[in-house]
Amino acid sequence: MPHEFKVIRRVEFSETDMEGIMHFSNFFRFMETAEHAFFRSLGYSAVLSRNGLEVCLPRVHAECDYQAPLHFEDEVLIHMLVQRKGSRSLTYEFRFYRIVGTKHEPVARGKVTAVCAARQADGSFKAVPLPKELAQHIEEAPSHCLDPQPHHRKMDERQNPAGVAAK
Amino acid sequence: MPHEFKVIRRVEFSETDMEGIMHFSNFFRFMETAEHAFFRSLGYSAVLSRNGLEVCLPRVHAECDYQAPLHFEDEVLIHMLVQRKGSRSLTYEFRFYRIVGTKHEPVARGKVTAVCAARQADGSFKAVPLPKELAQHIEEAPSHCLDPQPHHRKMDERQNPAGVAAK
Amino acid sequence: MPHEFKVIRRVEFSETDMEGIMHFSNFFRFMETAEHAFFRSLGYSAVLSRNGLEVCLPRVHAECDYQAPLHFEDEVLIHMLVQRKGSRSLTYEFRFYRIVGTKHEPVARGKVTAVCAARQADGSFKAVPLPKELAQHIEEAPSHCLDPQPHHRKMDERQNPAGVAAK
Amino acid sequence: MPHEFKVIRRVEFSETDMEGIMHFSNFFRFMETAEHAFFRSLGYSAVLSRNGLEVCLPRVHAECDYQAPLHFEDEVLIHMLVQRKGSRSLTYEFRFYRIVGTKHEPVARGKVTAVCAARQADGSFKAVPLPKELAQHIEEAPSHCLDPQPHHRKMDERQNPAGVAAK
Repeated sequence: MPHEFKVIRRVEFSETDMEGIMHFSNFFRFMETAEHAFFRSLGYSAVLSRNGLEVCLPRVHAECDYQAPLHFEDEVLIHMLVQRKGSRSLTYEFRFYRIVGTKHEPVARGKVTAVCAARQADGSFKAVPLPKELAQHIEEAPSHCLDPQPHHRKMDERQNPAGVAAK
Repeated sequence: MPHEFKVIRRVEFSETDMEGIMHFSNFFRFMETAEHAFFRSLGYSAVLSRNGLEVCLPRVHAECDYQAPLHFEDEVLIHMLVQRKGSRSLTYEFRFYRIVGTKHEPVARGKVTAVCAARQADGSFKAVPLPKELAQHIEEAPSHCLDPQPHHRKMDERQNPAGVAAK
Repeated sequence: MPHEFKVIRRVEFSETDMEGIMHFSNFFRFMETAEHAFFRSLGYSAVLSRNGLEVCLPRVHAECDYQAPLHFEDEVLIHMLVQRKGSRSLTYEFRFYRIVGTKHEPVARGKVTAVCAARQADGSFKAVPLPKELAQHIEEAPSHCLDPQPHHRKMDERQNPAGVAAK
Repeated sequence: MPHEFKVIRRVEFSETDMEGIMHFSNFFRFMETAEHAFFRSLGYSAVLSRNGLEVCLPRVHAECDYQAPLHFEDEVLIHMLVQRKGSRSLTYEFRFYRIVGTKHEPVARGKVTAVCAARQADGSFKAVPLPKELAQHIEEAPSHCLDPQPHHRKMDERQNPAGVAAK
């Protein structure tokens, strides 16, 4: 059963900033690109109302650790894994690689948690169970494929300027 | 000495998505808005080369926890605090509040770590000490103003669907 | 009666591109910033459904002539004028100026035509008259304030609301 | 010799707005996507400094006529044609089609003029001839493929490269 997905995307000019690299906020848009392609591969739109499911998947957490910059026209492999399928949430891991010939150079790792939510009359969201028909198509990635948990302690180490300083 | 900054920004139409709320990636752009206004308040551009300092501040980590959605035309108070001034890095905390009359409703919390870096001949970045003339203007926020550390354990709790589920 | 509006906005880092200037597509977002502030000044949201008016204002034409680049942290004065108030459309002119001390340097001129539209059952838009209660608050700018018109008449024909109205 | 190019791109979630359609400013980013793929097909990066050519291609004019909205996950065919190869400028036409099964539904038409420019010591741009080695690879589309021209002649005058060239 599907627990991962890979897409390739090219960095566009409008995604760069004056430092000559892809703006860090765009990595989060790239994560979504992979997630939504994953949903399409399951026969679903990430906008679940298009499948008659009256729920949506607002994000409650997003993070990214940047190891190396991306540049204009870089081809980027985005590898998404389902880290956790909760009863009311999905957590994904993302790994970004710059494709250089036959090599894949790691550039970033990310994580997103989306909650399955129903919109209330007042416009707010309320967490509800993932629709069964969708949930049955998704499984968690085997733990040996995932970042060690508790994830966050790890993050702290990685983030420490070493990511950049080690160069 | 300055350890925090507040800016107000209004959610623009182009920042919303088809779910009717501000796209989650834009919170990271808003964080930068506050950071850069903080730098201007110190007499610096966040693009430090404009001040004759040949370093830049690439991000090595960014994260955001979303508690409630933002909508078109919402006025948002972004409160930035310097969580840590390292020798080669700056870590900020961000708190987002929707301004409703005289009330400030919390909507999100974020964190960004930027490393002070010099660009190498091959285009890569190398971490270097923060320029003294800049560093002397910045101080860490008093710990009682900051999120409890280790920050991440806390995050995990908060993120658990409760953020949304509690409604 | 109101026929123009001015707003000031600062170029953000995420709006720049690797050539070191504001990406040309962002001028269109800035035009909307001015238009929406104009609507707020009239007591309306540009998302008219917020005022109980079940119409929206999709764009049928947008253009921009660029005279000089904008850079990070530039303060930009956006001057919007109502060029034409049709029965079912609004056309605006925009002039962009970089604020340098007490001087305003022209950097770009733009134009946008929005059609007043009602959403049909199939999701398409149908042009409908501007709601009277809104239209009564808006007037055309005096012709001597506007760009010479031959050009614009031309534009109107090409676009002639047929694009949307014909549905 | 190449005078046109076609690319297909899918509308991403972050490109939609709260009206449920692709934000109009993103059509300009899509135009650039096609232009840059065209350059790659010629063996060039649109950032010509990557090919050792010390010029760039800032836009002096951009426009778009919108006929029908694009929605999330729509597949869009972007057809770019070289309308005019001036000595110091390139003007492109763009046609956008939504791909629905085997049909291509027209949704928009655009136009962009880029001027070949060299950056001056003070940061401004000066129009210069297109590098011969690049220009020799590009030709104008046959006139019967293009939009009728009277309109365009007009455009050229208005913009006349003076905006940039006069510096």
